Amino acid sequence: MAANKEQFNDLGLGARASAGQFRSLNKDGSFNVTKANVPFFEHFNIFHTLISMSWSRFFGVILLGYFVLNLVFASVYTAIGLEHLTGIEHTTLAGDFLEAFFFSAQTITTLGYGRVAPMGLVANSVAAIESMVGLLTFALATGMLYGRFSKPSVRMRYSDHAVIAPYRDINGFMFRVINPQGDELLEVEVNVTLSMKRPGSELRDFHFLDLERKHIVFFPSVWTVVHPIDHTSPLHGVTETELMEKDAEFIVMLKAFNESFSQTVYSRSSYKPSEVRWGEKFAGIISYGTDGITVDVARIDESEKAALNA
Amino acid sequence: MAANKEQFNDLGLGARASAGQFRSLNKDGSFNVTKANVPFFEHFNIFHTLISMSWSRFFGVILLGYFVLNLVFASVYTAIGLEHLTGIEHTTLAGDFLEAFFFSAQTITTLGYGRVAPMGLVANSVAAIESMVGLLTFALATGMLYGRFSKPSVRMRYSDHAVIAPYRDINGFMFRVINPQGDELLEVEVNVTLSMKRPGSELRDFHFLDLERKHIVFFPSVWTVVHPIDHTSPLHGVTETELMEKDAEFIVMLKAFNESFSQTVYSRSSYKPSEVRWGEKFAGIISYGTDGITVDVARIDESEKAALNA
Amino acid sequence: MAANKEQFNDLGLGARASAGQFRSLNKDGSFNVTKANVPFFEHFNIFHTLISMSWSRFFGVILLGYFVLNLVFASVYTAIGLEHLTGIEHTTLAGDFLEAFFFSAQTITTLGYGRVAPMGLVANSVAAIESMVGLLTFALATGMLYGRFSKPSVRMRYSDHAVIAPYRDINGFMFRVINPQGDELLEVEVNVTLSMKRPGSELRDFHFLDLERKHIVFFPSVWTVVHPIDHTSPLHGVTETELMEKDAEFIVMLKAFNESFSQTVYSRSSYKPSEVRWGEKFAGIISYGTDGITVDVARIDESEKAALNA
Amino acid sequence: MAANKEQFNDLGLGARASAGQFRSLNKDGSFNVTKANVPFFEHFNIFHTLISMSWSRFFGVILLGYFVLNLVFASVYTAIGLEHLTGIEHTTLAGDFLEAFFFSAQTITTLGYGRVAPMGLVANSVAAIESMVGLLTFALATGMLYGRFSKPSVRMRYSDHAVIAPYRDINGFMFRVINPQGDELLEVEVNVTLSMKRPGSELRDFHFLDLERKHIVFFPSVWTVVHPIDHTSPLHGVTETELMEKDAEFIVMLKAFNESFSQTVYSRSSYKPSEVRWGEKFAGIISYGTDGITVDVARIDESEKAALNA
Repeated sequence: MAANKEQFNDLGLGARASAGQFRSLNKDGSFNVTKANVPFFEHFNIFHTLISMSWSRFFGVILLGYFVLNLVFASVYTAIGLEHLTGIEHTTLAGDFLEAFFFSAQTITTLGYGRVAPMGLVANSVAAIESMVGLLTFALATGMLYGRFSKPSVRMRYSDHAVIAPYRDINGFMFRVINPQGDELLEVEVNVTLSMKRPGSELRDFHFLDLERKHIVFFPSVWTVVHPIDHTSPLHGVTETELMEKDAEFIVMLKAFNESFSQTVYSRSSYKPSEVRWGEKFAGIISYGTDGITVDVARIDESEKAALNA
Repeated sequence: MAANKEQFNDLGLGARASAGQFRSLNKDGSFNVTKANVPFFEHFNIFHTLISMSWSRFFGVILLGYFVLNLVFASVYTAIGLEHLTGIEHTTLAGDFLEAFFFSAQTITTLGYGRVAPMGLVANSVAAIESMVGLLTFALATGMLYGRFSKPSVRMRYSDHAVIAPYRDINGFMFRVINPQGDELLEVEVNVTLSMKRPGSELRDFHFLDLERKHIVFFPSVWTVVHPIDHTSPLHGVTETELMEKDAEFIVMLKAFNESFSQTVYSRSSYKPSEVRWGEKFAGIISYGTDGITVDVARIDESEKAALNA
Repeated sequence: MAANKEQFNDLGLGARASAGQFRSLNKDGSFNVTKANVPFFEHFNIFHTLISMSWSRFFGVILLGYFVLNLVFASVYTAIGLEHLTGIEHTTLAGDFLEAFFFSAQTITTLGYGRVAPMGLVANSVAAIESMVGLLTFALATGMLYGRFSKPSVRMRYSDHAVIAPYRDINGFMFRVINPQGDELLEVEVNVTLSMKRPGSELRDFHFLDLERKHIVFFPSVWTVVHPIDHTSPLHGVTETELMEKDAEFIVMLKAFNESFSQTVYSRSSYKPSEVRWGEKFAGIISYGTDGITVDVARIDESEKAALNA
Repeated sequence: MAANKEQFNDLGLGARASAGQFRSLNKDGSFNVTKANVPFFEHFNIFHTLISMSWSRFFGVILLGYFVLNLVFASVYTAIGLEHLTGIEHTTLAGDFLEAFFFSAQTITTLGYGRVAPMGLVANSVAAIESMVGLLTFALATGMLYGRFSKPSVRMRYSDHAVIAPYRDINGFMFRVINPQGDELLEVEVNVTLSMKRPGSELRDFHFLDLERKHIVFFPSVWTVVHPIDHTSPLHGVTETELMEKDAEFIVMLKAFNESFSQTVYSRSSYKPSEVRWGEKFAGIISYGTDGITVDVARIDESEKAALNA
């Protein structure tokens, strides 16, 4: 445990032996971290599960829940006896069950056509309970639906590659990021952490990179994030080959206030050495007109040769 | 890329060539920035669209959605055969379709009068699905409605013009701002950025302006925001004519906690040189009585001649 | 405008002439500030109005809205002709209107008994619209209801009076505050601003008071907020009589994170010279037992004589 | 009151006499603090009560409320006279009341089968009011239900014991914490406060402990929180026996942004001297593979002997 304060233990990943090449943070912002042996009841969180599953799965869950609940209540009505539901069109046994099933659906949604209606204490009690259960469970379903819908998505567009480009009289590590969506991001803050294997060791160090600017007030356009490679930089004197050998990883976290959603949002990405172009600089993609500024988002990845400073 | 740290790249607008005069931030706080060539699926965000459209458009969308959904389900009921709906008053074909349409409306809102009611497996299944679809889509519609309604609006009232007025033994750049609404704003913070063309160049620099006070705890009244033009100010020694030539723009961002909505809110505005009055100071608009303070909001723009310090 | 930076313009109240004694902040945290001549559409905010009115008024608004909407729709159904509603029990004209009124109530709440039901294009269309209007307006009403219900209330209990008590080898201005509610407050931060008339002038200065501790991590118990009156304090050398003459006001703002509501909450109060007791100190109200700590809330105002340091 | 600034009054617990051994903060994060003599209306907060009670109790409250409301309205309908409800199946008095009860249930949930329906001014008025009451009260019930459901739970897993382990060339106080849930925690910040009895006194001091790292950007894995026991540490030179005698308590507060819930969450825990192991260090529980990192959560408490530095 001889690491110094700046290098140690950021990300909660620890400065331990790494078996070889790996990527801790995927391009989409998810972590390559598995938690083993977590007791089920400790890690399972219904809300998290429901809010992060895919839309098709989510609607599947709702449909299934609706179907199963109706099945259960239809069985209860059948068990009680369908003579306690007025207006049933008696046909076959299956047909009777279907009548009970659809009566249940009309009850649980509080639709209540009334063609079929409960009679007597037991059927009425079940129907009264079912309509309450319906209100509560649909409140959860619609709450989750709106919760998913109104959850701020941060589809930041990062340049596919970073560059090592001339910067003033030294060089800099740079990447670009755009908010392609129409909503305004405010008070944007970026953090870049560099993870590298320690020379001649399998241990991994984490370094916060100093940035030319780590906070901007507005973010209407493109932002080129720059880490100047001065003599205090962990990249100082590091060559392209060394970066590969150290199995480096640039971990990016961006935080902003999304004005449409009135919420703080986070976005993450990472660059591996194979995604860093040495001796290139990003091409200009902003054009100014009398009526404002235009940013050509399609050209975010465009870079051109540029001789590095010594 | 020879700009220095304080000047570079604030606002994510970049220090690039500007074709001439332009306003990056409009008076209403929107940006004159266009993002070109953004793939549709990347920039389109239904929630953002629905929450930022006008109220009339929003209600139009809801009404249209309601109409179309009923049209679709009416067609399905018609296709199944109206003999599966009891209680239909058969008249013409159009009349039959209308009966199906209104039955659909009664089902999707879970109204369910029951004069018309579904019979048999298929019609009942469609009705069961429709009522569920109704609960879910109305949850979205009403969620959006309330989301729009409860979204904090920040109708800050900025003085129409800023002034360059005497301030202590130097001068200052000042503007005034009032919260005309009844809700309390707390922990108000203001940022003023000055954008100017670089002398003899088309490049544009951005400067954070130091303020006499950039944070106030309460905001019950009027606030005169003051940038003292001392020797560290980018406005130091700049004349009215030069400010025009440099096509300056004062970009204002205000952040506060809105107590009624329990949310952080942002407000933006800007001043161009033509909106800055030199050698004027704001008139007093606060009067103190034994029962408190009165602010005359109508006089926020009132200013009077005042000899500038040398 | 010769005030220095620390004194000027905090609270957005300005250092202007005060006609005499007044209290800018009431005990209950509201401001004695009136905004005159605000155009109606600028200051009126329906949400703010609805969320801050009393409960009885709020329910009055809902009931009235419900009544008026039903009146309107009943009139429409009557205008269309009640022959388009099946199941109406025709009696008198008034009785007919009542039937239309209650049919409307059953429609707008999506209750839909169906004893009365619409027939034909026009009546059905109105009913279809009414049920949609019902869903939307009840979404607003119930959203506001829950919004009010879930809005964090901060019923902080401040000691009725502050004291000037001995503090270490000097004296201190102190008051006490308790969170009487069961919910946990975290990361509590307090600001105390002292407003005083300038000597021999009607101008008013505002001073931030340095506090012994302005931030605590937890707040399970009572907090004695202390401003040490050292030589940097604006209270240094000020006597009880002078404090009266300067018409001083201690303005308190407290900010905290309420864990139950998962929201940041604010609380405000103020002390006038008549509410400050000189040469008293607060009595201890915490008792420790083996099973924890007990705070006697009823004794929060209890203080006893204590000789001040010179 | 001779405590110095760093030691005094943190936690709002005060540096007062403690009768003996006690634990101010329980393992589960609740405080051993009782507030006595709080007027009922000041400390009672319905929302807090409803959101923090157990699920079974919560559903009990809802069910009871539903039952009682129906009982009340059934009584009203019975008082009015059941002849004003069409479709009632008259049997016994009890049977009649049940019909009224279930009619009420169908009305309050806006189910409205219509088999039973109100006739005349009074019954209709009550039904119109009841359906409105139903919409409002169910809005509260379902709002609370979703509020509870979507309230971020922070089930942090702390190591059962802390250790005093060698750290660089000195020693350190360490404990481990894991987020066992699937949701991402960002910008995690930890505070550790040490409470100890003053030597030869029953007074209690509170010390903020300096941490090797008190803030991490991501928290995908395990975090070992380390307080280095250097010469500035209140633990410097303290022996295991002294820690017992001083009845020490390490109070931990962890704050993070939960990305699934888009909310800031807090977690608390504490360690007493009997839960601190001297001369042990935590065993490694992270293993690196080519496809990422695995954390063995079950081994969080595992520690092994380690000779302390002098």
